Amino acid sequence: MGWVTPAPGSAAHTVQPATGTRLDPWIGAYADRTHGMRASEIRALFAVANRPEVVSLAGGMPNLEGLPLETLAQIAHDLVLTRGTTALQYGSGQGDETLREQILEVMRLEGIEAHPDDVVVTTGSQQALDLVTRLFVNPGDVVVAEAPSYVGALGVFRAYQADVVHVPLDDNGLVPEALEETLARLAAEGRSVKLLYTVPNFHNPAGVSLSLERRPRILEIARRYGVLVLEDNPYGLLGFDGEPMPAMRSMDDTGVIYLGSFSKTFAPGYRVGWAVAPHAIREKLVLASESAILCPSNASQLAVSAYLANHDWRGQIKSYREMYRERRDAMIGALAEHIPEATWTVPEGGFYTWVRLPNGMDAQAMLPRAITALVAYVAGTAFYADGQGADHMRLSFCYPTPDRIREGVRRLAGVVAAESELVQIFGTGTDRHRASQTVESVVTDTH
Amino acid sequence: MGWVTPAPGSAAHTVQPATGTRLDPWIGAYADRTHGMRASEIRALFAVANRPEVVSLAGGMPNLEGLPLETLAQIAHDLVLTRGTTALQYGSGQGDETLREQILEVMRLEGIEAHPDDVVVTTGSQQALDLVTRLFVNPGDVVVAEAPSYVGALGVFRAYQADVVHVPLDDNGLVPEALEETLARLAAEGRSVKLLYTVPNFHNPAGVSLSLERRPRILEIARRYGVLVLEDNPYGLLGFDGEPMPAMRSMDDTGVIYLGSFSKTFAPGYRVGWAVAPHAIREKLVLASESAILCPSNASQLAVSAYLANHDWRGQIKSYREMYRERRDAMIGALAEHIPEATWTVPEGGFYTWVRLPNGMDAQAMLPRAITALVAYVAGTAFYADGQGADHMRLSFCYPTPDRIREGVRRLAGVVAAESELVQIFGTGTDRHRASQTVESVVTDTH
Repeated sequence: MGWVTPAPGSAAHTVQPATGTRLDPWIGAYADRTHGMRASEIRALFAVANRPEVVSLAGGMPNLEGLPLETLAQIAHDLVLTRGTTALQYGSGQGDETLREQILEVMRLEGIEAHPDDVVVTTGSQQALDLVTRLFVNPGDVVVAEAPSYVGALGVFRAYQADVVHVPLDDNGLVPEALEETLARLAAEGRSVKLLYTVPNFHNPAGVSLSLERRPRILEIARRYGVLVLEDNPYGLLGFDGEPMPAMRSMDDTGVIYLGSFSKTFAPGYRVGWAVAPHAIREKLVLASESAILCPSNASQLAVSAYLANHDWRGQIKSYREMYRERRDAMIGALAEHIPEATWTVPEGGFYTWVRLPNGMDAQAMLPRAITALVAYVAGTAFYADGQGADHMRLSFCYPTPDRIREGVRRLAGVVAAESELVQIFGTGTDRHRASQTVESVVTDTH
Repeated sequence: MGWVTPAPGSAAHTVQPATGTRLDPWIGAYADRTHGMRASEIRALFAVANRPEVVSLAGGMPNLEGLPLETLAQIAHDLVLTRGTTALQYGSGQGDETLREQILEVMRLEGIEAHPDDVVVTTGSQQALDLVTRLFVNPGDVVVAEAPSYVGALGVFRAYQADVVHVPLDDNGLVPEALEETLARLAAEGRSVKLLYTVPNFHNPAGVSLSLERRPRILEIARRYGVLVLEDNPYGLLGFDGEPMPAMRSMDDTGVIYLGSFSKTFAPGYRVGWAVAPHAIREKLVLASESAILCPSNASQLAVSAYLANHDWRGQIKSYREMYRERRDAMIGALAEHIPEATWTVPEGGFYTWVRLPNGMDAQAMLPRAITALVAYVAGTAFYADGQGADHMRLSFCYPTPDRIREGVRRLAGVVAAESELVQIFGTGTDRHRASQTVESVVTDTH
């Protein structure tokens, strides 16, 4: 099929879309925001990393082996049988009210007191990220984010043509003095800073947490500069020891938008996340969400709600914590044994450790060699808006078993050793160029 | 709770968010696009119209009484039990491949031949509308749409700061001569026209369909002016008589983005819709969707996929068609009996009829009186970007039973008669103003 034949006597065509070629006839029609759109480094990697023979330390998929599938199957059955015409119908744009009340219970574990009206249910917390950015960011506005920062958030900020300015973090999370200095400089430059985006607990990718002492200080600085804090907290309940830290939202209910998710504490397949926002912002979030998707899935929301009502969800989180702690231990132990020349963070929760390679080695350049050696990771550059991070990599310990994690790190050690030798012979620059070309072919091959 | 106390010695606050008031301290921080955001007239209405004593001819909710809930419950059960770690996990941004193949089968009923790679699964077709607009529309770009047009699409176009230019339709759908004239004028004015948005089958709200003869003509005109056609087709398989018409996409695979949905032919609660787009656009749609939600729900997609594989979905659509035909007949019969002074379209499928009130009566002004009389509809102005449509209303016959539909129209007839009398005494202008104020109080009361 192709274009229909113009009616006889019609005017000459002013546009001639190409057919049967790889050219895009609509290339001139895209909006400005579309020109900066590109696949994340993580996405290109997944096609390769998901081969069964590869040990993937790249993905952020939770391990669902421990879920009570028989119970969940029964819940799904009863939900459709007894409440089918509600579960399968359109719902409210803000989300199911019972679920919003249950979300309050979950958040209370991190000290948050709120009202069900403050909560907006979204299609994963990624949608909440998108909606908040949509509400606040004009092209050219600044979003301040940790260095490094969550790749999926950087993608959203780019999609809305924000300028991301990074602020360093250390073992205690975002550095208040560095934040203050950055906001002062941006204010002096007359820049419009709209959001401070932060992952305070078990940071993705850095694996660190914002210390309790720093939390009010960060809030005070943001408040002083009139910057809204976007607190993204998918991992807060997945600490390996002790009690969860109080959320930043528990210390400030007018200057923080809080994002939560069931993807890591329960399961991502229902795509149920949420935002908690000050009243006026919450109203606008609902309008924006209705425009984007009409309403979140009732089937998903009621399934999550029934799980929370009928199952020991706190016990499930506890068993997740134990599983991930064992995997963290396997990862850290293997790093110490096999790649002692690198340095890494020791996460007290969550999914990731952030590894720094020695001798200026380039993790992006090394990736094709790693995949050839059947181990995958994400190179550090994915987590910066400005090209930093080449000597870092994110290793995730959430999905593979402890044995596979140890095997993966062992393979990685071989790659690092070989690369280290190459760097000593050829230097980093040339090698980086050669290797980047190779990774493109590797990725293309798998499509 | 409130703002944390600033650290001693910190600089004076430059921003002082109000607390404990209805003021929005962040009012100055919103993006330009947020300022035009407002609740649709339909949304404000729903809180009122959903009271059980009101006969709602307002909503577009499908009637799900006929769904085989026992079968669906078993499907949901088996899905979680046997494929739980897939159904509850993250999935591909483009959507489940098996489901995309099944979607091809569905679209083949309307003559569409495509490849699974051409399909992007979305969170309802509303999300596809949002993503397409995001890809193409800069602020100030023009989207051409039928007069009237789907309120949810108008909301999306507004959210991206598009200028909507309406083109008339008649009983055979969008008028080609009017489209040509409009595009010529816009071209002469140097406007950037990005999309022609059209609902060719059983139009929402107008109830008409684009004739077979006009389809290639509309495509040819759009092609000649370099305008991409956005074909939104939620109702195409819900015709009351005969075979479905060939989709516009079946006549043109390079100049049309096609949107489909399971919300009306199966159930909306899973939020599963899709887009079919030319290759280069499809790639960008997937990137935009990953930025917006990471991936559509696997749980929802696999449930829909299992339904299509294990149930007579064509038979289900047939029974929906029969149910809605009976309701259409009830609606049209009651209009002829009770409000013969009005005129209306006679839809051959879908959910809606479009009614014109006599004597310049104002449907928006009349709405509070209708709600007092326990019947609800949507006033015509909701379906225009420019304030047209005051003398029209959309009546939907999808949800209430035939008896309730007849009762609703009978109540509406009383309202029209009383309003008609008022108009003759006071004229339309004053009355409209008075009534608009009243509807605001009615709606506020129910929150």
